[in-house]
This record gives sequence, structure tokens and C-alpha cells, in this order.
Amino acid sequence: MINKLVEEIKKKNAPIVVGLDPMLNYVPQQIQKAAFEEYGETLEGAAEAIWQFNKGIVDATYDLIPAVKPQIAMYEQFGLPGMAAFKKTVDYCKEKGLIVIGDVKRGDIGSTSAAYAVGHLGKVQVGSKSYYGFDEDFATVNPYLGSDGINPFLDVCKEEKKGIFVLVKTSNPSSGEFQDQKIDGKPLYELVGEKVAQWGEECMGDTYSYVGCVVGATYPEMGKVLRKIMPKTYILVPGYGAQGGTAKDLAPYFNSDGLGAIVNSSRGIIAAYKKDTYAKYGEANYADASRQAVVDMIEDINSVL
Amino acid sequence: MINKLVEEIKKKNAPIVVGLDPMLNYVPQQIQKAAFEEYGETLEGAAEAIWQFNKGIVDATYDLIPAVKPQIAMYEQFGLPGMAAFKKTVDYCKEKGLIVIGDVKRGDIGSTSAAYAVGHLGKVQVGSKSYYGFDEDFATVNPYLGSDGINPFLDVCKEEKKGIFVLVKTSNPSSGEFQDQKIDGKPLYELVGEKVAQWGEECMGDTYSYVGCVVGATYPEMGKVLRKIMPKTYILVPGYGAQGGTAKDLAPYFNSDGLGAIVNSSRGIIAAYKKDTYAKYGEANYADASRQAVVDMIEDINSVL
Repeated sequence: MINKLVEEIKKKNAPIVVGLDPMLNYVPQQIQKAAFEEYGETLEGAAEAIWQFNKGIVDATYDLIPAVKPQIAMYEQFGLPGMAAFKKTVDYCKEKGLIVIGDVKRGDIGSTSAAYAVGHLGKVQVGSKSYYGFDEDFATVNPYLGSDGINPFLDVCKEEKKGIFVLVKTSNPSSGEFQDQKIDGKPLYELVGEKVAQWGEECMGDTYSYVGCVVGATYPEMGKVLRKIMPKTYILVPGYGAQGGTAKDLAPYFNSDGLGAIVNSSRGIIAAYKKDTYAKYGEANYADASRQAVVDMIEDINSVL
Repeated sequence: MINKLVEEIKKKNAPIVVGLDPMLNYVPQQIQKAAFEEYGETLEGAAEAIWQFNKGIVDATYDLIPAVKPQIAMYEQFGLPGMAAFKKTVDYCKEKGLIVIGDVKRGDIGSTSAAYAVGHLGKVQVGSKSYYGFDEDFATVNPYLGSDGINPFLDVCKEEKKGIFVLVKTSNPSSGEFQDQKIDGKPLYELVGEKVAQWGEECMGDTYSYVGCVVGATYPEMGKVLRKIMPKTYILVPGYGAQGGTAKDLAPYFNSDGLGAIVNSSRGIIAAYKKDTYAKYGEANYADASRQAVVDMIEDINSVL
């Protein structure tokens, strides 16, 4: 799957991923109204609204982008109907040829981590049959529990030719509380980065590893160091746009081949119509605003490569 | 909810929690057969099997125990039907008066962490109405992202009078890869423990905080130190039994009031019938075996308090 991701990024000349993280208040009134008319102001109604919202954005942008990153928390908050909307979104994006990075940040140990890996990337055995659960192409994984948490994911990745992105340095202001703490003079995130490189060696695609990592756009100096520590690791970069990361911050995350990083924008794309720059599209044409925001983001990022 | 947990532990004289982590191969043949006859060898069939299995164990043990800890990964692996079985299990346990600790190990930042908090502990707003999603009483949370990940949970905990258990030192062999790394001479898990104590101060119940932590039974020396760092923090202790932790290892996790810790056993209880000690019950009476294993575990743990 990492080979496919690299190919699609090259083909579309777009090292970006759209974060499908729908808040209900991003969803235009007409979509909410239609959903609530059909299902009432219920969890089912909310799930229908975010699904229709997503569909509009995917239809308007899929030809421009290699991948999407649905943030499962935004669906999970609506309970079971929300989870169903997540699954519907994953399936629809795959139908449209998009690579789906499930931003699930799961992480546990042994058989429990294996269950997450199976549920999100692999097949579960039921009697004599086997089934995919949520069936994303990549999943984000939390490293706090060490190799016992990661290895079960690697097993599934090898079998399914799928991949993971391990949290290394997150984009938020307080990420330093633990991640920046110095261990023998070296911050924890570097130590995690070294492990990611090591885990990645056993899961190599053609040029990059199936084991990627997450490094926030908001910490470019650290991105530069981490790029060197993990030369064959794809870096998923959140924090561009709404969180303050700019295109010029992003150059150090890429390798000299112009590859090696994929930049995420969520709010900046899916709620583009709420920004002054794209307000002219109007709420009803929110998907057109998202398309234009994708075009502009691709141009912005390619300008520094 | 921490007050209720303490009360129930005292009332039942049982500082234990049963981990409802059903693997399909724990489920007795007759239950699997009935579920597959009704739903086929499908995800729905698997979900029905684990739900019926859980129900049997809950019916046989609820009068003895204060709490259960369903591990969501074991449900999530069966996709949407699995998530429905998780929700059914949570609801049924609450009907039976049990406190439900959702072992979800979620963790993200800002509005995303808030969405997880709302989905698992709180209410989500849909138009003019609000709904509980999964509605556990406690959730386990991963601290790698720092305060930005924890604070949204604290907000929901305060509103709902619910609680969290933050991973501090996990029970697995490789937990030391990052958690034991020394920062100014002090291991990372101590630093996380200090933050847990700090987060907990703003969410105090009568004697213990709404912010608990997770420390594995397999590291009693560390448990002893962490107990002192977090005197008002309830410690959820995995790793007893199947993972190698013994009752005498557990004494340091408790305070002198005989409280302050709750010990989890999953496989040791729910798959008791597969162990030599309880094999006499037979597969058909798996729930009776689980009940006896609960009785024995309570006695074992109380013997060191």
C-alpha cells in the first residue's frame, strides 16, 4: 500500500491528504435539515448528515488527491450510527480509488493490539470464514506501549500489504510534556523515531517502508532531525493550516526526491466555505469551496518542493 | 463515579474487576453453534456469540464484583456488529448495577480528544437534543500527547461525574522501551505519574480522584513508587494471573486504608473453564467456572491486604 500511496502522490502531483473530520457544525444547514427530516434529531440523523457532507467533499476532490484521513473520533462520538458512517465513508473513498488512512490512534499490547490491527487493517476469522472489519489501508498507532503494541500491527501489515503511521511528535502545544523530555541528552521523540526506523526495516516497500510516522507541521526543526533519523519512513504531517503550520515549514519533512511526506489538512479543506477566502462559494456550494482549497493547498505545498 | 466505585468495592469486599475481553476461541462450542445457526458464520454471528458468552459470565458474577472492564478491541475486530455487541455489553452490565470501565485506550488532542470523551463518557449534541454514545462509566486514556489529550476528558468527567484511568506503566514486557527511559534520573512513567496526580487534583471525589491510572501487576517495585507519587489516585492493575502477576506482588499498589487499587483479571476469569483448576465444571458450565474463579481471586487478593 505504501507503493500505491507513493505512486498516487506522484501521479496527482499532490503530497496531501484530506482529513475527513466532520464536526456537525461544519455541515451546511441544508444537509443537516434533510438528514434530520429523515431521521429526526437523533444519532442516526447526525450520522447521515456527516456521511452526506463527506460524500459531497469526496465527489468534489477525489480526482485531485491521493488519500483521505477520516478521524474516527468524530464518528465514534455519535455511537453506533457514527461508526456506521465511518465505515460507509471508508468504503466510499476506496470505491473512488482513494487511499484511506484511518486516524484511529489505537495502541494496546499482544492479542489486544492484534485485535485492533485485524479490525482496522486485516481480516478476522469467524468459524471457517474470514471478514474485513473496518478495512482501512493505513492506521495511525500510538507507541507508548512499545514493540508489544506495534508488532501485531506489523504482522497484519505484512500479510495485507497495508501500513501504519506511528505517532512520533504530535502537532499540539503540549506534545512536549512527554515527547520532548531528554533521555541521555536526546528527546523521547527521537528515540521513538529510531524505533520507527527499526520497525520499518522489516516492512519495506520499493523505496519507502510500510511503517510511517506522524510528525506535526508545527515543529519544523524537529521534523528536520526526524527526517534524517527515518530516511525511508513516510511522514504524515498534521497541523498545516488551521493549527498554524505553513508551507515553508514543510520543506524539511520531504526527502530530496520530493517524496517522503504527506501533509494533512482537515478543517482548512472540509470547512473551507467558512473561511473568508472561500466564502464567495456560499454554504450550499461547500464542496466547490473544498475543491478550490485543495487546488490552493497543492500549489502552496508544491511551491516549496 | 469514583465514589461509587469505592463504595461498591467496600460493599462487596472485592477490589477486583473482570475483564470482558472475549476471544472467539474462549466461547464454548454450544454458544458458537447457536449463534452461527441464527446468523451464519458472519460478523453478526461472532458478535452474537461473544455477547451471549458475556451475558453468561455477567449473570454468574455480578453479585460478587464491583466492576467490569470490556476491552473494546475484542469487539472492534468484528467491525460494526462487534461494536454493537460492545454497546449491548456495556448497557447490560450497567443494568446489573456494575460499574463499566471501557478499556478503550483512546488519546488524541483538542476537539478530537473531546469527541472521544463525549462518545465514551458524555453526551453529544444533535440539533436541540443530546445523546450518550457508548456511555461507559470510566475510560482508559493514553497520555503520549500530553495535557491537550487529557483536559477534554477532564471537562467531560467533571460534567458527568465519570472518570478516566491514564496509562502510566503498562504490564507488557516491552513497556520499558519508552516508559522506563530516564529523564533527569527519573523514569518517564514517574513523570507521567506526577502529571496524573496533578490532573487528578482538579477532579477529586470524597477520598480519591476521578483521574485514576493504570500500572501493571508485573512491575511491583514500580507500583510501590507510583503509589507514593499518586496517593489519591485509584490504580487499575492489569497483569494479574495470566500475565504473571501474583497476589503478593499487589500489596504495594494499595494504600493503608486497604483501598486505592482495583485488580483486573480477564482470561483467568472468563476462560477459567479452560484451566485445569476449573476444568471439572465443563465447557457447558463455563459461567460457574468463572464464578468460582472470581471467588478464588477475591480471596487471593484479600489475603495480602
